Amino acid sequence: MNFADKLLNAIDEKQNPAVVGLDSDIGKIPEFLRNEFKEKFENPFEAAAECVFEFNKRIIEKIKDIAPAIKLQIAFYEQYGFNGIKTFKRTIELARKSNLVVIEDGKRNDIGNTARAYADAHIGKVNLFGELFSCLDLDCITVNPYLGIDGVKPFIDNVKNYGKGIFVLVKTSNPSSGELQDLFSGNKRIYEIMAELVEKWSEGTEGSLGYKSVGAVVGATYPKEAEVLRKIMPKSIFLVPGYGAQGGGADDAMPCFNKDGRGAIIHSARGVIFAGNEEDFDKKAEEAALKMKQEIKEAMKKKTIYPW
Amino acid sequence: MNFADKLLNAIDEKQNPAVVGLDSDIGKIPEFLRNEFKEKFENPFEAAAECVFEFNKRIIEKIKDIAPAIKLQIAFYEQYGFNGIKTFKRTIELARKSNLVVIEDGKRNDIGNTARAYADAHIGKVNLFGELFSCLDLDCITVNPYLGIDGVKPFIDNVKNYGKGIFVLVKTSNPSSGELQDLFSGNKRIYEIMAELVEKWSEGTEGSLGYKSVGAVVGATYPKEAEVLRKIMPKSIFLVPGYGAQGGGADDAMPCFNKDGRGAIIHSARGVIFAGNEEDFDKKAEEAALKMKQEIKEAMKKKTIYPW
Repeated sequence: MNFADKLLNAIDEKQNPAVVGLDSDIGKIPEFLRNEFKEKFENPFEAAAECVFEFNKRIIEKIKDIAPAIKLQIAFYEQYGFNGIKTFKRTIELARKSNLVVIEDGKRNDIGNTARAYADAHIGKVNLFGELFSCLDLDCITVNPYLGIDGVKPFIDNVKNYGKGIFVLVKTSNPSSGELQDLFSGNKRIYEIMAELVEKWSEGTEGSLGYKSVGAVVGATYPKEAEVLRKIMPKSIFLVPGYGAQGGGADDAMPCFNKDGRGAIIHSARGVIFAGNEEDFDKKAEEAALKMKQEIKEAMKKKTIYPW
Repeated sequence: MNFADKLLNAIDEKQNPAVVGLDSDIGKIPEFLRNEFKEKFENPFEAAAECVFEFNKRIIEKIKDIAPAIKLQIAFYEQYGFNGIKTFKRTIELARKSNLVVIEDGKRNDIGNTARAYADAHIGKVNLFGELFSCLDLDCITVNPYLGIDGVKPFIDNVKNYGKGIFVLVKTSNPSSGELQDLFSGNKRIYEIMAELVEKWSEGTEGSLGYKSVGAVVGATYPKEAEVLRKIMPKSIFLVPGYGAQGGGADDAMPCFNKDGRGAIIHSARGVIFAGNEEDFDKKAEEAALKMKQEIKEAMKKKTIYPW
């Protein structure tokens, strides 16, 4: 199935466009759980990776009927070496079994056969000894466009061939995103020019609702820019970080939606998964996920774009 | 030791600024070796990862006295899942024992604590249960600057704290690099603006020869641009891809050097490591590495910048 359809169906099913980020940094995981795993394993990388998996498992169990998707920030898994990649893969498998769409935040970028290697590893199949095998097998990955189409095309090929998705960084949520992205070239800002490229690159990836499987990352911290970008890329889905811990509120995220109430997924990580620090941390994450759903629902209703 | 010093010392010791890229894609490894490992292991990911390690080992043995450094493109290791990361780590350890500087081409980029996680995993130490541990422990990594200083600062912190290095993408070697990098903003191109940022960011990372541990990626396929960039970043080391398979020649790489014969490392992967396809592939790689060294030496002499 086309990725855009898969994601929009999941959003409809849960009546919620809020995605939970499993940025499961060992240093922020509740102490009681950390201590438990520190005792259990001799190798600290293995202990950390196993602890992160247990943490993820408990969070997924509580949010799987609330959120349409999870977003995995691979940096937090790479820090445990190959043990971390094992946990990353096990989390993907568990999330998929739990009926969640799985988005990787990897911001990968390279050219030619290197970009192809990334695309095949993360959202495609890898050719080993003449046979094709799924490796990480995410539904979707974020991609950095600094290298131009050479760096993005192998990913788009896999979007088309395997029913996968990508989100291209356009206007990121961080304070210094403007150093490059806000520069004017002629009468347009770089993020507008990148958005025009994404609009072009996304052709032919439309699903049954007209939305495209090549989307864009647009920070909730820049609502005015989001309004402009929504017009340039009317049928691309926006992955919207910056909600919560980074200071963006539900109202700030509204310009990322179309009038049909679709076209955006709002992402929060720390605000949800680290809501609690005791034995009931998973219950606290569940409450935070429900609260976020409610906040976004209210904000959508105010704008009369609530579709369910 | 400061990374710039370490790299320049290695270049002096080998009298060679040519770096070998271990882009060890299983599909390009000699068939006889592939077949051997396909038989030996049941799991195709394990078979591929073990085969890549054997390939790397044989290449490293032959080029360790010729090249000052190797560059590992992590995409070619991620494609074998956690097995690939094991091989990646083992290759780093072997290369270090073999007196080679180890550069990772990872083009990582993110913000805040996520960028910190990448930086700690790749060129720093990871905090696990209150203790610091080396994870991948590269000497150096490439970084994508699309997110501005937020995405680069955690890496620069580790450059300063751990004697590591980074190369920031400025003007990449690929045909479509101009889609974004060549745009004019005011009277400057984006790559010039990025170079000015790198020049600013690199302050305080100078080694004893004045060169900086925050360098730039500048493609050998764009010699005119390199000339401009050399002036903007006079004491940053350039990592110069695009030599060989991508069409850049030794003469094209010359504008990347300063008049003291320093300031650039030229990179070739496929042209060296896949020079042979039979039992003597490592010998063929050695010959190709020597030939590249000779070509660069001749080109430097023509420009009277040969320092040894």
